[in-house]
Amino acid sequence: MRSLSKACLGLILVAGLTGAAHAQTPFGKAENAIKYRQSAMFIMGQHFGRIGAVAKGERPYNKDEVARSAAIAAEMSKLPWEGFAAGTDKGETHAKPEIWTDAAKFKSDGEKMEQEMAKLAEVAKGGDLAAIKTQFGATGKTCKSCHDDFKKK
Amino acid sequence: MRSLSKACLGLILVAGLTGAAHAQTPFGKAENAIKYRQSAMFIMGQHFGRIGAVAKGERPYNKDEVARSAAIAAEMSKLPWEGFAAGTDKGETHAKPEIWTDAAKFKSDGEKMEQEMAKLAEVAKGGDLAAIKTQFGATGKTCKSCHDDFKKK
Repeated sequence: MRSLSKACLGLILVAGLTGAAHAQTPFGKAENAIKYRQSAMFIMGQHFGRIGAVAKGERPYNKDEVARSAAIAAEMSKLPWEGFAAGTDKGETHAKPEIWTDAAKFKSDGEKMEQEMAKLAEVAKGGDLAAIKTQFGATGKTCKSCHDDFKKK
Repeated sequence: MRSLSKACLGLILVAGLTGAAHAQTPFGKAENAIKYRQSAMFIMGQHFGRIGAVAKGERPYNKDEVARSAAIAAEMSKLPWEGFAAGTDKGETHAKPEIWTDAAKFKSDGEKMEQEMAKLAEVAKGGDLAAIKTQFGATGKTCKSCHDDFKKK
């Protein structure tokens, strides 16, 4: 009885701590955190994709449009991370468990992507299409590398 | 036979023009345009909601957090509009037909919201909580007014 009580107390504490951890995030529900990170990734992907279409010659190059898309993608690249809060590994998500079990690598990969996306925004302002193509490729590698390790197919 | 050919030609032209109109948007498919505008609205709503929680006293006031949320919400407020492209009135959307049949009012309502959201970002930088609450209310009215007219329940 005493040990059962202790076990119960342990469970309650864990539940309480988990609850507290969730309450610390501003999303309220896990599904909002998931939708938030997916929304940021989607907008980023759309604008990155537009630049890709220009890089591949499928869309005419317009300096202002590419600079705008790169700026938006760079802003979006800063957002998803807080959406990967504790307890958001279940539900409508392609997130692999490694995001939380190998959090240091996930953080490092995310930061690399952010840095390359910021560089792309800088390069895009310059209007040198060849340089944009090069930086688009470098940025895309950081997307792919992180998705390979941390996103389910 | 001749009239049938003419009718067919008409259909082909309409299909071609519709296709061309869609191709002008950078989204490729209508569902991407819908997801894009919803993603921007969702991120905006999350950050606007965080400020609302502070305004209602449900969340402690932190100047930097509120300023960041207001800045992100203001950036997001610029994005949804291109997602309301022609041919994106069907599918997984709460968009009312009036968005396209009363496009001038929709544009005007959207611009009002953008302006109030930009003001909120400015006020939030100042760190005066009373002023933030007032501007939060003014901004929320522009959200509600546009949703009442243009968003299905």
